[in-house]
Amino acid sequence: MSKKIGKQTIAFRNKPSVIGFYSVAGMKEGEGNFKDYFQMILEDDLLGENTFEHAERRLFELAIKNAIKESGCKDEDIGLLISGDLLNQIVTANYAARSFNIPLLGLYGACSTMAESLAVGAALVDGGHYNNVACCTGSHFSSAERQYRFPLELGNQRPPTSQWTVTGSGCTIISNKPSKIKVVNATFGKVIDYGISDVNNMGAAMAPAAMSTIIAHLKDTKTNVEDYDLILTGDLGKLGSEILMDLMEHEGYKLGQNYNDCGQMMFADRQKTFQGASGAGCSAIVLNSYVFQKMLKGEYKRVLFCATGALLSTTTVQQGDTIPCICHAVELSVEE
Amino acid sequence: MSKKIGKQTIAFRNKPSVIGFYSVAGMKEGEGNFKDYFQMILEDDLLGENTFEHAERRLFELAIKNAIKESGCKDEDIGLLISGDLLNQIVTANYAARSFNIPLLGLYGACSTMAESLAVGAALVDGGHYNNVACCTGSHFSSAERQYRFPLELGNQRPPTSQWTVTGSGCTIISNKPSKIKVVNATFGKVIDYGISDVNNMGAAMAPAAMSTIIAHLKDTKTNVEDYDLILTGDLGKLGSEILMDLMEHEGYKLGQNYNDCGQMMFADRQKTFQGASGAGCSAIVLNSYVFQKMLKGEYKRVLFCATGALLSTTTVQQGDTIPCICHAVELSVEE
Repeated sequence: MSKKIGKQTIAFRNKPSVIGFYSVAGMKEGEGNFKDYFQMILEDDLLGENTFEHAERRLFELAIKNAIKESGCKDEDIGLLISGDLLNQIVTANYAARSFNIPLLGLYGACSTMAESLAVGAALVDGGHYNNVACCTGSHFSSAERQYRFPLELGNQRPPTSQWTVTGSGCTIISNKPSKIKVVNATFGKVIDYGISDVNNMGAAMAPAAMSTIIAHLKDTKTNVEDYDLILTGDLGKLGSEILMDLMEHEGYKLGQNYNDCGQMMFADRQKTFQGASGAGCSAIVLNSYVFQKMLKGEYKRVLFCATGALLSTTTVQQGDTIPCICHAVELSVEE
Repeated sequence: MSKKIGKQTIAFRNKPSVIGFYSVAGMKEGEGNFKDYFQMILEDDLLGENTFEHAERRLFELAIKNAIKESGCKDEDIGLLISGDLLNQIVTANYAARSFNIPLLGLYGACSTMAESLAVGAALVDGGHYNNVACCTGSHFSSAERQYRFPLELGNQRPPTSQWTVTGSGCTIISNKPSKIKVVNATFGKVIDYGISDVNNMGAAMAPAAMSTIIAHLKDTKTNVEDYDLILTGDLGKLGSEILMDLMEHEGYKLGQNYNDCGQMMFADRQKTFQGASGAGCSAIVLNSYVFQKMLKGEYKRVLFCATGALLSTTTVQQGDTIPCICHAVELSVEE
């Protein structure tokens, strides 16, 4: 009866499918390594709005509207919108949902939200509760930067371990209708805190959470690292990815050529983002463009998508707390 | 196959059960109308911590730990913790989860979080993905007040339409094991915005969302208001409850003696909280003490629990946005 296949991983027996996906990328992202994959690249990061926070809502609305369109569904076919973002009180998801006549399930998992929403969405479709759900997240460099760090006008110097928050939004439509890409199982992560307190080194803080979830997934599913065409973390960045590889090796798992990180891959070196990209939008726009497109072409057949999130706030930093992190993983597979 | 019973309501065919519940209430709440129902009443709202934010985490930890104990489970029996709170980046839920070796699904639904977490938890148990899950939320007057409104030291005057954020946390354990109280179905709410912008009148802002979800639920389940022993909204307060009754009557539904509101019921008049209580902890501690206890005694057999949330942030207020709101409903039933 139970679909729990291991201590931490839940299996989807009814094969929920990806029937539509869409990514909207900001201007800087549109000049990076995935420029040929994004479905939409902005010409104005403000989208004609008067604040960056309002612009972020437009990003979400564009991603949701176009993903629904790509799936061949209409708004009324979507039973539930599952969405969250980085702004306080997830106001981007909340306000964007006003534009759709669809019930909202609001989530918060920081930059792990794309995997978190896919895991919940696939479970609700798998359980027979919904026919189609929309899973969406994203971020905006300018709204995140001024909420979490400094006023943009200050022009603060960025340390070498820092990452660049992605402007972009991605949305996936999960359905009980058949399609080529299936959501096979999901591993919800535990909150892991290795005592890192440097808010400019998120990769180091998040790497142990990624290790925890990936190892739990491999043990639960009795698979090895080599069984996957791609193991993709969310936004550890260059340094964080190296730390993850070291941590995994110490536990006896060797991440090889099939491992990569969305944060590490996003920007070209000439774009000077130090450790690479971050933000809930980072893994969201890579998954909903590059990864799904490669899966449809058959270039990737089995993918472990592991989005990572740092669960701090400015208040916890001010009160001297360390940074707890989480990683949720979703296994995706191509069926001919 | 589909368990969707209406446009917005999902039914739980496998009868997920409430096998444990616990509420921790603050000092002021412990002197209010539910003082004989709360399982734990604090003697110190700081719980020996150095900040109110740290105290709020202890509240959650106490509620979760004791709910698991009451259910007869051990930590390792709980497959997933489903939790969220009012603080930025839901840090209470995130940091409290460090104390448990249980994966976390982080949610944000403002003061609707208790119903939101129950709906998700019951769906995941119903779908066979988990045997037991813990659903927890709460709030702390002092942390919420200083994050959303003014520094506590300012001693700001409170307007007559205002409500008092509850200090307290409630946790429910949902299971596939049989027990007397069943979760029958759930209605996820749409985001509703009637253009209210007064942050000191949340009841008025939230009432239309409550109406939307309650009417959707009644239509989907083909039931009438009179079919329930109790229809209980989350924290509309006195004024908000009156507005809801007016709005419902305008639509042809007469909420009568079987309707009440947790915010309206919480405090005694002598406690001078104006419109009553609010906060994610408000409906959480009423449900996880009074309501479940009355259900176990057979005094309530069919309950529609409708937690309401205002989805604003301080930034949206500063940028002149109106207040979007949401209400999630969960139907509970006693089976002998």
